[in-house]
Amino acid sequence: MNGKWIQVEGGVTAAKGFRAAGVAAQIKYAGRKDVALIMADRPSVAAAVYTSNQVAAAPVRVDRERTATGIAQAILANSGCANACTGERGIQDALSSARFTAEALGIDEKLVLVCSTGVIGMLMPLDRLEQGAKEAARTLSRDGGNDAARAIMTTDTVSKEFAVQVEIDGKMVTIGGMSKGAGMIEPNMATMLAFVTTDAAISAKMLDRALREATAVSFNSLVVDGDRSTNDTLIALASGEAGNAEICDAESEGYRLFADALRGVCVGLAKMMAKDGEGASKFVTVRVIGAATEADAKCAARAVAKSPLVKTSWAGMDPNWGRVIAAVGYSGAEVDDQRAQIFYGDVCAYDAGKVAGAETLAAMKERMRAAEFTVTVDLHLGDGEAEIYTCDLTHGYITINADYTT
Amino acid sequence: MNGKWIQVEGGVTAAKGFRAAGVAAQIKYAGRKDVALIMADRPSVAAAVYTSNQVAAAPVRVDRERTATGIAQAILANSGCANACTGERGIQDALSSARFTAEALGIDEKLVLVCSTGVIGMLMPLDRLEQGAKEAARTLSRDGGNDAARAIMTTDTVSKEFAVQVEIDGKMVTIGGMSKGAGMIEPNMATMLAFVTTDAAISAKMLDRALREATAVSFNSLVVDGDRSTNDTLIALASGEAGNAEICDAESEGYRLFADALRGVCVGLAKMMAKDGEGASKFVTVRVIGAATEADAKCAARAVAKSPLVKTSWAGMDPNWGRVIAAVGYSGAEVDDQRAQIFYGDVCAYDAGKVAGAETLAAMKERMRAAEFTVTVDLHLGDGEAEIYTCDLTHGYITINADYTT
Repeated sequence: MNGKWIQVEGGVTAAKGFRAAGVAAQIKYAGRKDVALIMADRPSVAAAVYTSNQVAAAPVRVDRERTATGIAQAILANSGCANACTGERGIQDALSSARFTAEALGIDEKLVLVCSTGVIGMLMPLDRLEQGAKEAARTLSRDGGNDAARAIMTTDTVSKEFAVQVEIDGKMVTIGGMSKGAGMIEPNMATMLAFVTTDAAISAKMLDRALREATAVSFNSLVVDGDRSTNDTLIALASGEAGNAEICDAESEGYRLFADALRGVCVGLAKMMAKDGEGASKFVTVRVIGAATEADAKCAARAVAKSPLVKTSWAGMDPNWGRVIAAVGYSGAEVDDQRAQIFYGDVCAYDAGKVAGAETLAAMKERMRAAEFTVTVDLHLGDGEAEIYTCDLTHGYITINADYTT
Repeated sequence: MNGKWIQVEGGVTAAKGFRAAGVAAQIKYAGRKDVALIMADRPSVAAAVYTSNQVAAAPVRVDRERTATGIAQAILANSGCANACTGERGIQDALSSARFTAEALGIDEKLVLVCSTGVIGMLMPLDRLEQGAKEAARTLSRDGGNDAARAIMTTDTVSKEFAVQVEIDGKMVTIGGMSKGAGMIEPNMATMLAFVTTDAAISAKMLDRALREATAVSFNSLVVDGDRSTNDTLIALASGEAGNAEICDAESEGYRLFADALRGVCVGLAKMMAKDGEGASKFVTVRVIGAATEADAKCAARAVAKSPLVKTSWAGMDPNWGRVIAAVGYSGAEVDDQRAQIFYGDVCAYDAGKVAGAETLAAMKERMRAAEFTVTVDLHLGDGEAEIYTCDLTHGYITINADYTT
């Protein structure tokens, strides 16, 4: 499953041919990095996945057109202002940001992608963003990956980077990424920005395919609060500098190795995002197995991961498995509570109509003391399986979100 | 819209022909009422709506068969133990409870309905329930409505009763109800129990029809946390003692008057439940108008009412309308953010791409200081409308739910 890749240090500058920077431009707050720039030495193969939210932010609308060409060279990303619901002015601001960034970098403006995260309905402070972009352009470096990762953080408490290497075709290929998450995280992309760079030589079509496959089992298998944002963007750039023979066949060994490694990066980042969910004190993997269909497994796992009652019980280390089966019951998935089993870690909490005794509840509580645990639901109806990465719902989430704009 | 009914004092014993009682039987906690009994003087016309959760509790399974006959005489309800996920033993326990209640009342056991709310996966303490049922049978009275309403409370902070009167056919008809809610509340029924009694003379078919119509705009338009329970039950009993000509035609004036009044009772109870949502500090009505279809309006309103990010912003009196439009955007409803408007009370927060200024945000904050306010989304796409009753998400919700079973 994991393929042959190994994890290495670094993020978006781990692969050959990329530089990055992160600077403080006072987009919303003083004294914190809020503008990130990633640049490939040459125009690179590009692929992207965007929010499914019908209310897409201005930069998403701009980037969608640009990545459709399969080629890009730089990404300017800011935190503090989402440039969403800002009308025609927002679109113009996004286009201007790409333009001044391109000028600072001396490249074609169509090769610049722009991404924003932060408050919806706030106009972009364009002067400050321009100063930031220029400073970032001046300070681009092979060591700038972490600065860039820090600059896109909003309520994240840690920066998120993950990189891997895999030998393809006798050449060492590196794939590295960075992301930000925290709130508004749900399957189908959510206020998350994620950028992946690789030195693999790969066609735009294959990069797009591998990115979509990886997204399904990583960022789209991630639930924090069930909200989905207007700005979600995942972009991959491939410089080709590793020197492998270009990957252009989905049936090839090269594709399989690359896709596995890319999945490793995306799952690595997604798990970091669940662990750092707003206010999270527990990282929980919800596994549904034995579902009638894979679609059933997914919708059952998501219902459990999204249920406020289940999530608060995890926060309280309360072995309240009844809330888990209730969530499965309303998920829309086929379920027979006289056949289903629920496990917390390796402890069977519910066994096809047989109720957990005091000893079992105590063992469950013990498992829940860990910072990470897995809740498994076996529906005993078929072969459908799904895994969702999520976290608990705590007072911290309320504190963070009850007072965010002001 | 409101019809000709007027609100009167009382709950399930407001209508002629009903007695009730509520007693403490130590089902889970000592010293609080936890067994309610409602009894009609004679076998009555009955209709019911049950949870859509596939994992239905034992009493729901038993009652479904019994109310299908259109006739019932008594309802035994307990809090503290849900008798859900308790297998065949749970079914036997539900049947036994109906049996000993019928014996205590001297009626046919098939005329007794049983309802439970509380912890899932706990076996019913049958001896204590029997003692409670017997005591309740001894203490049934015309004044027992409030005791019964108190006995079904779980995390509710206040008991919920609502009664109305309406003249039908020259006779004064009374309809009264009680309910419990608090957590696990969502459209399509949620851990809620609600019982409505009336002295109207009405056919089982018409009572069922009126009950379903009323449910759609009341209990199914209610969101607390988006969880749906295994035990939801709404039962209506009609004694016929008002002496009106039996309502048996949905096109008749009598049906319209009755259905309006029943809707008044159900909406009254539903609003009380939203106000008393677990940890709630704000009662919020989410109205979506101008939607392409009514289904779109409903799904957009539910998405807003369920969004943890929106609900926490209300708790913090934070005028973060961006979270509202983001929720509408992912709801599945058709939306064009260049046409949509959002209002907090009468303040226009977002106007088709135009962003709210500081003065508007201040006015929104002012509106949000009230204990109750309305958020209106006008999509400007059609005539679809929907209203959802909901509440904010606070630290209180986390405190209540992070430590419930133990």
